[in-house]
Amino acid sequence: MARKTTVTPRDKEVAKRLHSIGKQVAEEIKKGEPPNVKMPVRSLSNIHFNEKKEQLELGNAMSKRSFMNVAHSRKFMQTMLVTNWVCKELVEEGITTSLRDMYYALKRTIPGTKENTVEEQGESDPIVVDIETMLDVLREELHLNADVRGRVVGNVVIKDRGDTVDWSKLGSGGWSIPSNVENVEIKKVDAEYILLIEKNAAFERLHEDRFWESEKCVLMTSQGQAARGIRRLANRLSVDHKIPLYIFTDGDAYGWYIYSVIKWGSMNLAHVSDRLGTPNAKFIGLTMTDIDHYDLGDYTIKAKDLDIKRAKELKNYPWFQDPEWQKEIDKMIKGQRKAELEALSSKGLRFITETYLPEKIGKKDFLP
Amino acid sequence: MARKTTVTPRDKEVAKRLHSIGKQVAEEIKKGEPPNVKMPVRSLSNIHFNEKKEQLELGNAMSKRSFMNVAHSRKFMQTMLVTNWVCKELVEEGITTSLRDMYYALKRTIPGTKENTVEEQGESDPIVVDIETMLDVLREELHLNADVRGRVVGNVVIKDRGDTVDWSKLGSGGWSIPSNVENVEIKKVDAEYILLIEKNAAFERLHEDRFWESEKCVLMTSQGQAARGIRRLANRLSVDHKIPLYIFTDGDAYGWYIYSVIKWGSMNLAHVSDRLGTPNAKFIGLTMTDIDHYDLGDYTIKAKDLDIKRAKELKNYPWFQDPEWQKEIDKMIKGQRKAELEALSSKGLRFITETYLPEKIGKKDFLP
Repeated sequence: MARKTTVTPRDKEVAKRLHSIGKQVAEEIKKGEPPNVKMPVRSLSNIHFNEKKEQLELGNAMSKRSFMNVAHSRKFMQTMLVTNWVCKELVEEGITTSLRDMYYALKRTIPGTKENTVEEQGESDPIVVDIETMLDVLREELHLNADVRGRVVGNVVIKDRGDTVDWSKLGSGGWSIPSNVENVEIKKVDAEYILLIEKNAAFERLHEDRFWESEKCVLMTSQGQAARGIRRLANRLSVDHKIPLYIFTDGDAYGWYIYSVIKWGSMNLAHVSDRLGTPNAKFIGLTMTDIDHYDLGDYTIKAKDLDIKRAKELKNYPWFQDPEWQKEIDKMIKGQRKAELEALSSKGLRFITETYLPEKIGKKDFLP
Repeated sequence: MARKTTVTPRDKEVAKRLHSIGKQVAEEIKKGEPPNVKMPVRSLSNIHFNEKKEQLELGNAMSKRSFMNVAHSRKFMQTMLVTNWVCKELVEEGITTSLRDMYYALKRTIPGTKENTVEEQGESDPIVVDIETMLDVLREELHLNADVRGRVVGNVVIKDRGDTVDWSKLGSGGWSIPSNVENVEIKKVDAEYILLIEKNAAFERLHEDRFWESEKCVLMTSQGQAARGIRRLANRLSVDHKIPLYIFTDGDAYGWYIYSVIKWGSMNLAHVSDRLGTPNAKFIGLTMTDIDHYDLGDYTIKAKDLDIKRAKELKNYPWFQDPEWQKEIDKMIKGQRKAELEALSSKGLRFITETYLPEKIGKKDFLP
């Protein structure tokens, strides 16, 4: 027999907000008015960079989805369907699932018609983002999980689903960062900074040297672009517990983009930058200056056209306008070279643990 | 200061084997003979399916790599270079790294020449497989890690790097399966079977319902094709501790291939099937019969040409000749349909926990 999962106070609040959509629509119907839902516009025209908060966010433009507008009615129906299902089957039941499972659970032929509720997942996924935006809740708070990736170790004790987990006592594996970290209670943190590494190999090397212990830090790896769970966990540790967050990626446009999303948020998810972004994050490396300073020139890779194109795009983003970043990007475009984290291994396998990271952190040699 | 990592008795044994290559070559040189190394042939012609052991393995054909043969001498040099480096820098130092880092660490211009030791990673990677095959050691025992993926929960207690980790007390996250599980000591196992799931979403659903607790099992997810660490961990739990291993994937050729690699081994790694393969593994689903039995027809996906092509290939492999598998594959080819695990969510989000898995396991309804 499956355990009855728990419903938290936050679940009750989220359920209340979901109900509010239904209530408003029911009232409109009772009054004989055309039912509709309103939501912030998420297209590029309504996304801007808030310089003060240092994050991407949505503007004030709103759109209306009306049942009586034939161009909207199918989407309106789907909005009601998803809102009701998420409320009744997930949030009020304390059950979590994925977007793909939701699509299968919702797909059926509407009785008496040949019309399907949803034909493909591409129809149900955006409705979840609509609800996220309308109600100012995270997708994870709707009990819909994103992909998982990434692991963490360090002097941190958490409480999660009744278990007390000490991230410093997990052997070589580390704690698997789940999709949803909303209910993870951070009980004790004894760390001077968080080091979030793009690549698992560097994470494993540092973990083997117990870098997190000697340097008193939290080590995380995103294994590529950071999943939502990692971004949210980094935000909670860094913002709520006031611990600096340093990002360590390859020295190329893709690495910078990983940094950019962790720090400032992303255009797709501009409506949740305040919870997924960490504006105080700093870029520790690998920088173009590192390549000269640590004599890594022989270990760089010729940049492809796409690398240069992407670098030029980033150079124009409002959030990369700091002169230090402009200089960094120009240097890459001019030199036509990029460098991977692994290039540091040319100096010896413990170079990263014993020299590179302690030096950079000691001198506070970061990009903003 | 980085912690001095430990050197295990197995490290000493592996170092001895690595030294033996150098010793043999040194003796040949002293005797004025052309130095060479011998290794089993790894091409298709020397790979066969051992019906009795139920695993892919290498035959007896051997090849010789000779320094005096101009077609071999570069590769011979690289074999010596990698063997020496792995022995001195990794195994004897107790340091672990990745293939990519190794490539960077080895790359340099040979003094007095314009020749580089290695030009690209494609040159150094195969040498590691050569050494694996020659010395009958795992790549992980050479301290070279593969990609990591996957997590595990259940009533198991392990000891790893001095930490005691209880897989039943890790909250929602679970234990991150590392690349190298050779030094993980399995201290206590209280499980009737291991359920290895292709998709993380199903793993998270089952974990949320604490399926591993109510059903007394170990839950693992591979998140796609199983990484070496997962295959080795499944092998150690299932073979050494005599616990049945059930594999749960999508009902399609890709899912069957995941199963096939976990059970019988893979052609690429035929030389290590005995440690990475688990011949007793059973396929729990999703099967073509499940689609009819659980009325999932509306939730299947039309198979593409590539799906059918791949299914026909698998049908011809010696290890898929069991009549039950032949029937299963024929059914898919005839019906031109495939099904994802998530299709079960059309029956309700707890259907998998409360109905599907208990029924299939209760009736021992597996494919061999």
